[in-house]
Amino acid sequence: MNNIIEYINSNKKRYIDELVEFLKIPSISSNPDNKKDMLTCAKFVESKLAELGTKNLKIYETKGHPIVYGELMEAPGKPTILIYGHYDVQPVDPLELWETPPFEPSIRGEYIYARGSADDKGQIYLHIKGVEAYKKNNVPLPVNIKFLFEGEEEVGSENLEPFIKNNKDLLKCDYVLISDSPMYAYNTPSICYGLRGLAYMQIELTGPNKDLHSGSYGGSVHNPIQALAEIIAKLHDKNGKVTIKGFYDDVLKLSKTEREAFKKLKHNDKKYAKELGVAELYGEKGYSTLERLWARPTLECNGIWGGFTGEGAKTVLPSKAYAKISMRLVPYQKPEKIAKLFEKHIKSITPKTCKVKVDYLHGGGPAITPIDSKGVKAAFNALEKAFGKKPVYTREGGSIPIVVTFQEELKAPAVLMGFGLPDENSHAPNERFSLINYQKGIITSAYFFDEISKL
Amino acid sequence: MNNIIEYINSNKKRYIDELVEFLKIPSISSNPDNKKDMLTCAKFVESKLAELGTKNLKIYETKGHPIVYGELMEAPGKPTILIYGHYDVQPVDPLELWETPPFEPSIRGEYIYARGSADDKGQIYLHIKGVEAYKKNNVPLPVNIKFLFEGEEEVGSENLEPFIKNNKDLLKCDYVLISDSPMYAYNTPSICYGLRGLAYMQIELTGPNKDLHSGSYGGSVHNPIQALAEIIAKLHDKNGKVTIKGFYDDVLKLSKTEREAFKKLKHNDKKYAKELGVAELYGEKGYSTLERLWARPTLECNGIWGGFTGEGAKTVLPSKAYAKISMRLVPYQKPEKIAKLFEKHIKSITPKTCKVKVDYLHGGGPAITPIDSKGVKAAFNALEKAFGKKPVYTREGGSIPIVVTFQEELKAPAVLMGFGLPDENSHAPNERFSLINYQKGIITSAYFFDEISKL
Repeated sequence: MNNIIEYINSNKKRYIDELVEFLKIPSISSNPDNKKDMLTCAKFVESKLAELGTKNLKIYETKGHPIVYGELMEAPGKPTILIYGHYDVQPVDPLELWETPPFEPSIRGEYIYARGSADDKGQIYLHIKGVEAYKKNNVPLPVNIKFLFEGEEEVGSENLEPFIKNNKDLLKCDYVLISDSPMYAYNTPSICYGLRGLAYMQIELTGPNKDLHSGSYGGSVHNPIQALAEIIAKLHDKNGKVTIKGFYDDVLKLSKTEREAFKKLKHNDKKYAKELGVAELYGEKGYSTLERLWARPTLECNGIWGGFTGEGAKTVLPSKAYAKISMRLVPYQKPEKIAKLFEKHIKSITPKTCKVKVDYLHGGGPAITPIDSKGVKAAFNALEKAFGKKPVYTREGGSIPIVVTFQEELKAPAVLMGFGLPDENSHAPNERFSLINYQKGIITSAYFFDEISKL
Repeated sequence: MNNIIEYINSNKKRYIDELVEFLKIPSISSNPDNKKDMLTCAKFVESKLAELGTKNLKIYETKGHPIVYGELMEAPGKPTILIYGHYDVQPVDPLELWETPPFEPSIRGEYIYARGSADDKGQIYLHIKGVEAYKKNNVPLPVNIKFLFEGEEEVGSENLEPFIKNNKDLLKCDYVLISDSPMYAYNTPSICYGLRGLAYMQIELTGPNKDLHSGSYGGSVHNPIQALAEIIAKLHDKNGKVTIKGFYDDVLKLSKTEREAFKKLKHNDKKYAKELGVAELYGEKGYSTLERLWARPTLECNGIWGGFTGEGAKTVLPSKAYAKISMRLVPYQKPEKIAKLFEKHIKSITPKTCKVKVDYLHGGGPAITPIDSKGVKAAFNALEKAFGKKPVYTREGGSIPIVVTFQEELKAPAVLMGFGLPDENSHAPNERFSLINYQKGIITSAYFFDEISKL
């Protein structure tokens, strides 16, 4: 490994120069005007994989933008790592807020400024360079590697999901390695080992069979807005717990190790509340903010509507009221089961005065890669060696559907090892990426393959 | 009186012929194309008042349609009755549903079919004919009479309110007599002696200072939709009572006489629930449906909104949620006081996790003319004599702002003595008016003046 690390350290400038070329390509997936640039960008990625000697290298056309795939199956009997990332970038509006043009990379201080620098070009390129270091030094790769890069992550990965389902053999692997997330804080190497899932529901509550005049009828029928409010108010108890029967049955309890790991992150509740403009935080009693956000399921009202919502005063007693309610799920809750429990519960607490319809709009499972798994352990060791300090364990409150697809279709857990920083403006003007983290990322990548092969 | 009644009974045909002429004028106040017809109609009314020998007869121009006023101040020392009504009518759409054209009056069975027949031309014309019967028989009028007919009731009486405020001396009276409402049921002479008032509020609840991602933040802050639902759910107790402190303090209790009178109306809860499509009615425990609708204050949610309300699933944890909430008031609740109590209460139950803004959008007082007042008693006697049966007492759940204006500006209580029927389609195609009730209405009108002069 020493030769490899030495080699990486002596190639800093070249890594930056190559990244600059990558960042110059305006690969905005949502803009039809950039359709040609998307192909140019896919070809750039393909050429870089070709330099590594990847086999089965191919640009797969899709209904949208192409998928680039290539593999290095040179370590028989060793694990296979699928490196996933995306070469497409976010739009650049409002352009006038950029200090330097988004596709003319500019280095200022420790950062390189360009659209896509952190999200996700810089983070996929560091893995290509991590692999390259083995190749250039004629060191056999300690694991098998598959590269899978898509051009539609910023527009919903619509074509990647069927591609995975239709190419399970091609993509077969032991771990999916993803670098597309920020570190917990500056100079804090981080491993994200869990994502929440989602069950998204809609309630339609019907009171009277038509809109009524609130003067002529008010006082005789149950107003569906009021009834809906009464139903929603019953979904949390006074301790902030979700009251749906069976809701917590399949919840994976936080281990002592995890709770201690989260505690070490010293989340600043006061600062957090101030930033959000609230006088007090709210959540499930008995858990810290990070635990609530990352490892506990929640129920949120995403929307509500009914009756008159315009300017002024219209005295309607409406026939219907609606709510969109979603639940964030944690391992091992299943969206379909939770959706059924939700529907059953809502029906059981709907008063006789109203009729209710509950629809399951959308769902996705949670994901977890246990911290004692080989993948997470290898990431831990690699990050520690590269950064000279122990990484922290984090989870993510949101969902990354593609991670669940990998988990479900390939039975491969994901290791989320991000090198971005929380303030790198990944979806805003002046996106930037720390060149220190870029370089350490290349080193981490090289170490990771070695570490996982030894476990 | 015998001569007068005999005279009325022998003029049936003429009354109908004259009403037909009145109904032919397409006085749709909301249609600019009928602007000229509005004036024609006002002139028709004026000519009919002129035939009675009214003094101070005048068509008052307004920013909208004209007001017709005339008076017969021929009974010194006797009460003054202001007869209020409107000569404008509702639009006629959808025209294709009319069996005969809306402005070509057609008699079928006991009904005359035409737009405005019940609402309100037939009901104002019967008073003109009631007064005429005295004049034609050279019987001195037993009371002083003022006629006030507007042409904008169907579009909100915008110009009548300032007219009343600016002409308090001209309009000074002891009672306002209004026939612009339906009887409780067929062949059931009715007196409406109370109307509910209104205090209309808006709540804006703010949680976090911006819309958040429900995955990344769900579980750490109080969702304002949830908090709003929790607030609304607290506004009624388990007995359907409004929980606002002091809300019932000024409520005029239902007297034993009133409760018995309402009970006699034999409201059919089952049929009512079936018509509204609800399995069960809802309201304040300890009161019948009619009591709840007419004589008890209520709190209704007229609108609610917040977060994502479009198609599909957007995972927003919104910054704000809103509700429009109105309270129907009964004597002697005051809208301004109730609005303040509401605001205070909402603030007191808003959790520390959110900020709240409460606005008072609109209000109007309740109205009541006690059933032992001379006005109601005279109406009772007159209706009993004309219909040969005792009338019923009703109240109305809605508000009629102009009645409150009369009450507040002229200090004159209103007697609401309607001759329409609930199924006469006053705002729908095929509006009709029972000619039996028209004729009995003329007789009632004649009796009313006599009765009130004797009390």
